[in-house]
Amino acid sequence: MSKYDTICAVSTASGTGAIAVIRLSGTDSHDIAHYIFRKNGKILNINDIEPYKAYYGEIFDPVPDDKPMVDDVLVTFFKAPHSYTGEDSVEISCHGSEFVQQKILELLCVRGCRLAEPGEFSKRAYINGKLDLAQAEAVADLIAAQNEAEHRIAVNQLKGGFSNELRDLRSKLVDLTALLELELDFSEEDVEFADRKKLNELLGTALKHIGKLTDSFRMGNAIKHGIPVAIVGETNTGKSTLLNAILGEERAIVSDIEGTTRDTIEETFTIDGLMYRFIDTAGIRETSETIEKIGIERTFQKIAEADIVIGLLDGTKKLASIYKAARDIINHVNLLKQKLLLLINKNDKINISKFYDINDGFRWQIKQTVEKNIEAHGGYMCDEYSYSVTGQDLYDIRNLMHYEIMSAKNPEDIEDLKHNIRYYTSAPKIDGSTTLVSNIRHFEALTHAKESLEQVKNGLENKLSADLLAEDLRQALYHIGSITGEVTNGEVLNNIFSRFCIGK
Amino acid sequence: MSKYDTICAVSTASGTGAIAVIRLSGTDSHDIAHYIFRKNGKILNINDIEPYKAYYGEIFDPVPDDKPMVDDVLVTFFKAPHSYTGEDSVEISCHGSEFVQQKILELLCVRGCRLAEPGEFSKRAYINGKLDLAQAEAVADLIAAQNEAEHRIAVNQLKGGFSNELRDLRSKLVDLTALLELELDFSEEDVEFADRKKLNELLGTALKHIGKLTDSFRMGNAIKHGIPVAIVGETNTGKSTLLNAILGEERAIVSDIEGTTRDTIEETFTIDGLMYRFIDTAGIRETSETIEKIGIERTFQKIAEADIVIGLLDGTKKLASIYKAARDIINHVNLLKQKLLLLINKNDKINISKFYDINDGFRWQIKQTVEKNIEAHGGYMCDEYSYSVTGQDLYDIRNLMHYEIMSAKNPEDIEDLKHNIRYYTSAPKIDGSTTLVSNIRHFEALTHAKESLEQVKNGLENKLSADLLAEDLRQALYHIGSITGEVTNGEVLNNIFSRFCIGK
Repeated sequence: MSKYDTICAVSTASGTGAIAVIRLSGTDSHDIAHYIFRKNGKILNINDIEPYKAYYGEIFDPVPDDKPMVDDVLVTFFKAPHSYTGEDSVEISCHGSEFVQQKILELLCVRGCRLAEPGEFSKRAYINGKLDLAQAEAVADLIAAQNEAEHRIAVNQLKGGFSNELRDLRSKLVDLTALLELELDFSEEDVEFADRKKLNELLGTALKHIGKLTDSFRMGNAIKHGIPVAIVGETNTGKSTLLNAILGEERAIVSDIEGTTRDTIEETFTIDGLMYRFIDTAGIRETSETIEKIGIERTFQKIAEADIVIGLLDGTKKLASIYKAARDIINHVNLLKQKLLLLINKNDKINISKFYDINDGFRWQIKQTVEKNIEAHGGYMCDEYSYSVTGQDLYDIRNLMHYEIMSAKNPEDIEDLKHNIRYYTSAPKIDGSTTLVSNIRHFEALTHAKESLEQVKNGLENKLSADLLAEDLRQALYHIGSITGEVTNGEVLNNIFSRFCIGK
Repeated sequence: MSKYDTICAVSTASGTGAIAVIRLSGTDSHDIAHYIFRKNGKILNINDIEPYKAYYGEIFDPVPDDKPMVDDVLVTFFKAPHSYTGEDSVEISCHGSEFVQQKILELLCVRGCRLAEPGEFSKRAYINGKLDLAQAEAVADLIAAQNEAEHRIAVNQLKGGFSNELRDLRSKLVDLTALLELELDFSEEDVEFADRKKLNELLGTALKHIGKLTDSFRMGNAIKHGIPVAIVGETNTGKSTLLNAILGEERAIVSDIEGTTRDTIEETFTIDGLMYRFIDTAGIRETSETIEKIGIERTFQKIAEADIVIGLLDGTKKLASIYKAARDIINHVNLLKQKLLLLINKNDKINISKFYDINDGFRWQIKQTVEKNIEAHGGYMCDEYSYSVTGQDLYDIRNLMHYEIMSAKNPEDIEDLKHNIRYYTSAPKIDGSTTLVSNIRHFEALTHAKESLEQVKNGLENKLSADLLAEDLRQALYHIGSITGEVTNGEVLNNIFSRFCIGK
């Protein structure tokens, strides 16, 4: 398929709407569109067409003798290179009937258009230099964005924020390569330049930069697919009731029968512009029932994958049982990586004196378990409220976990909980200048680039020859170039654009 | 709600697409839209905006300090009265993300837009005299059109074909009224004008004209909702197999158990641009089973409502049974109003000699039943192949019914059947100048107008006074005016436009 043939597609959402937009792009697009369009009964003279002007008129079928009108429409002609694709293109805004849409596509195809493949308009925009590959991918992300955070990441990427960072990184690596190649030229004279130190410095900056980007992927990915929040606890503590209360709908089946939930149920919910993926898990208990056992195993998996763990405790149980359940949950999380919200549920069913009993004893009962947890993951407690990982900075233990007595049936408590979930989310404030890697292809390319750079670093330490180092640097450059599409291949392109919707 | 406030809505189909179009209409539409739009980082000077030109730029949120970009878009400004609504209006073509669409609507509403009600753009077009009411309704029909025939009726109505016919009719009635009122002025002198004869003539033409339009409603309505085709026959003759074969999918449950189909199943299928509504009915047999009995009663109802009846006979049965079943079916249709296709099914399971036996005997076996049927509905047989209703014109009996031996499992036979269905459809060839009434509101108004005119006719015959006649004529004029909206009321308007989609 030539890049010069003319493609067409319905670009608006499928189905019936008030209006729909059909897009053409390619060398013959003006010619083809103008042939089936008449204004006041007359075909436009193609040389008189003003680009970027909305013409009101009729699409008609030129073949039958009575040349019947198909629809009345607005048609706008775009002139290369000032169009989305960088080619001559046309937009026909017609009535949103599926019949009309199909009919117009038919008329266009009869006159030489070809139906566009998914993403083909954006692919042409990339080929014609209107967008780099990361920007083209941002178009797809923008269309799919479901919340403020996703939308901002996509907009920033579309505006070239990410591409600029990569260009920055790339130029650092090019400098590095230049230094190395200079050394390479003089290698026969066995001169080792003083620039080795500068080389090491540059390498350090580049690695730090890449590291920042790859680290952002966990958050970028969470924002795209929802930040995972696992709701765990023993059977019948009210996990499904809590999920339903958060979602504001009867999503999970609730009953008094222990072990009602077997499958893990996942639902997304947006709080303050960030999307969370809530995972209702099977209650933890000793069971001989096979299906339930599988469910409980999955619960442990889901706890490990979550960014935030909501541990639900049954406030109506005996004090000792509540504390034991709390310790069990703490033992299943990594407090240094995951946030833990322990909720002692059913406060509507417990009397005030027990309320005080729980409150007074709770922190002391879990203190030792928390300490061990932090130590097990490489930190240590400095005093009652502070812990440290590095040995230098002190952090407040209360930023890692939180507990409260509440009721999943009390709307105010649910609002508090949502607030706490947002508070305990380590998401950066995302504004127009935030770059988060949210695309797994980019993450993989950056990871490969990082690996290559680490090879260079090792090589420098082991005094490998400059030509070996240069090879690794070129690899790193290749991987970074693959993100924006400076280097690429047809298969990768097809893979990327085939995931777009048709008409984009 | 003032007609001057500014409304906005997403006009493209809901859901995610490559692009979406948001429309604004009203006095402040340019002002509101230009305020959240920047081109090369700058807001346009509102006095410099060229209407009908597609501006490429960004929608941004003007409130936060960083004034973040929301989307990159094309914006086109339309100047009253040269717009769809006849008001100043704006179209924003943005990315098809639902988040972006909502965000832009929010920004517009913050600046003073109001979300449009269903059909409000078209309602304004009507109020501002851009479309009459019948044309506005044609817009909704055009959007809903699912096939060529529906589409053509809607296009013709939108282009004013129907409105012109009504204008024609109206002017005839105005002439009539003028004549009558002339008489009224002179009534005291008791002069009876010679124009009574002309009055009668004019009345006759008008009634004929209205009659033509109301008669077209049966077909117009059938085209809109599908021409009803009932598939009937004894149990286990293969009715569901036939339906599935026509549709090319497994729609109805097929089994060898008699009485498998209880509910009537309806599915539409388009043949040669016309939509048919196929109705698979419960098989007719003596049964004591209550649910099945209800099904069989419904079968008789469905036969009565159908334009075309496909009577299915089981070719593997004894000859006498086949003929009896055929006669039963004929007795349930009105051959002068409905077309009958008798199919002797399962020819793959009968041997060649029986094939000839059926073929030879069939016509003679049903001849008498056919004759009686035609007589029962007001016609009579003239010779073996011809019948007459009026006593003057002779018609070929073979245009009323058809029979053949076939197999529902043979794709070629199914193609033949589709061809025959189309052949036996008494649909006119619909071209750009065909006016069919397809809207029940129009049909009712025309029927009322016709009743009033018939009152006038009776009145003339009974020599009623001119002022009484004039009153009936005014009623007829009122009803006709209500179709195009020359006379109307708010309730009727709301009723009409509330059925439109939002954004139209």
